[in-house]
Amino acid sequence: MSKINAIPTLQDIQEVHERILSYIHRTPVLTSSSLNEIAETSLFFKCENFQKVGAFKMRGAANAVLSLTEEEKERGVATHSSGNHAQALALAAQELGIKAYIVMPENTPEIKKKATEGYGADVIICENNLQSREDVLKKVLEETNATMIHPYDNYDVIAGQATAAKELLEEISDLDFIVSPVSGGGLLSGTALSAYYLSPKTKVIGAEPKEADDAFRSFQTGVLQKNTTIDTIADGLRAELKQRTFEIIQKHVHQIFTVSEEEIIGAMQLIWERMKIIIEPSCAVPFAVVLANKDFFKNKKVGIILSGGNVDLKTLPF
Amino acid sequence: MSKINAIPTLQDIQEVHERILSYIHRTPVLTSSSLNEIAETSLFFKCENFQKVGAFKMRGAANAVLSLTEEEKERGVATHSSGNHAQALALAAQELGIKAYIVMPENTPEIKKKATEGYGADVIICENNLQSREDVLKKVLEETNATMIHPYDNYDVIAGQATAAKELLEEISDLDFIVSPVSGGGLLSGTALSAYYLSPKTKVIGAEPKEADDAFRSFQTGVLQKNTTIDTIADGLRAELKQRTFEIIQKHVHQIFTVSEEEIIGAMQLIWERMKIIIEPSCAVPFAVVLANKDFFKNKKVGIILSGGNVDLKTLPF
Repeated sequence: MSKINAIPTLQDIQEVHERILSYIHRTPVLTSSSLNEIAETSLFFKCENFQKVGAFKMRGAANAVLSLTEEEKERGVATHSSGNHAQALALAAQELGIKAYIVMPENTPEIKKKATEGYGADVIICENNLQSREDVLKKVLEETNATMIHPYDNYDVIAGQATAAKELLEEISDLDFIVSPVSGGGLLSGTALSAYYLSPKTKVIGAEPKEADDAFRSFQTGVLQKNTTIDTIADGLRAELKQRTFEIIQKHVHQIFTVSEEEIIGAMQLIWERMKIIIEPSCAVPFAVVLANKDFFKNKKVGIILSGGNVDLKTLPF
Repeated sequence: MSKINAIPTLQDIQEVHERILSYIHRTPVLTSSSLNEIAETSLFFKCENFQKVGAFKMRGAANAVLSLTEEEKERGVATHSSGNHAQALALAAQELGIKAYIVMPENTPEIKKKATEGYGADVIICENNLQSREDVLKKVLEETNATMIHPYDNYDVIAGQATAAKELLEEISDLDFIVSPVSGGGLLSGTALSAYYLSPKTKVIGAEPKEADDAFRSFQTGVLQKNTTIDTIADGLRAELKQRTFEIIQKHVHQIFTVSEEEIIGAMQLIWERMKIIIEPSCAVPFAVVLANKDFFKNKKVGIILSGGNVDLKTLPF
């Protein structure tokens, strides 16, 4: 299969979905009458916290690995990541019998290192800063000739992430909104593409922590912005948009809302208590946006992408 | 509808299921390849932690309330409970516009009192011992003429709890085992009846904490036993069998296994971490039994009733 070299088309996303089907779970869409009452709207939660490796990242990683040529497969894949992309890429590679090299900063929790190694990846430790991550990865790429799989600035990955919203839209028709978290923008841009192709009346909303609001400001100004802080509990939402994701978001996202740390923690606790499911802080941001903008979402049909469930049970914020 | 006055028949359970259908959720059956690998068997989790009020108790309570005569409905229902039965009876009564009087011991967590009141029930506080619970309830019954709904020593309730296993068996065929927790025995006896009628080759197993093992000893000796301790984290499993549940369990349950506190906590943590769902300690006991008896369950098709998800997030055991 060839790689996608421009904004993914409907046909691209459909082919990608076919391709990754046996490597991912079709996650359930859950509802909660008690949360509907609190939010005064109808919510449909697409549970990617139940996805393989506990996050939607498995979709993009699986497609990226499946899109490699035979020659590339022999050389393996590499990335730097302290989060869900690391485990997703490691598992996707393992399932195809491909080597994966994952550069992780030294402060990565032991449990995440172990999990990544558990999927058969080579974990290479670097210092805890972007420069070291990039330097060490560069060295790994030179030594191994592996293919770098960027966690989001990659159309194969974006098309993979798009399949979560595709499944949601196949299951629930006439959604007024889909709300997705935004970090580097892989999930949000994929979601926006699926909605644009499959349900044009559905408006896609980005949900971002105030404490890491590069996407909000980029969207407002039309120019890529940097984060000024990343002091947020939503540890999966500290990355920044890149050109590929920003272009799609500018074209196809309706609006981006930001929420405070308190709002994120409150939304997370409500989902744990009422829905009895485990989500990570980043994953609570879309529901926090709905609660913080009740008038905007009132009595609408709102899809929410629950992005992941990898949380340290020893350090809960409530 | 008349009340059930003997061990529920298949027709009873079918009629009960029809009757309560719009008052309960049809909960999903989840699987986990990672837990299957750990347990070396095929597990099918019936998620009553997603049930209304967060526990299977809604099934029995709904049926008990729906089975009342019009005259009884006018007088209301009453019970003593510090747990899930309180909330289930309160909600079931509220949905039918019936008055509910719930006697709760003074050490009941504030959140549970508030939740029960939130469902419109009158909460009457008593001292923290069985004598006071029964005395205060007796007084309430005299004053109100309400109908006492026992949490499990009641065939209407047992037939209601039987519908969880009925749904599981309708969805997953050829189960070798269903494992259910046992406390007063309402869920276990209902599960055993459904399996006996709908899938006779499926063996039903009771799962009990070693620290509250009256059912295990009653089953072994053939004579109703008392708990000698109730020092278990599984706070929903501290009650004792009564004649109605014991008789069904003696007839239709294959075996009862007990597990240690450590095994319960370990099983609970595994389900939280791997399945990303919230279950209460009592609810982890069946999976703990499967892990503690690997050879017995090896390579079998095993249904597990996940009984509830009401847990205090501030006092997790891990």
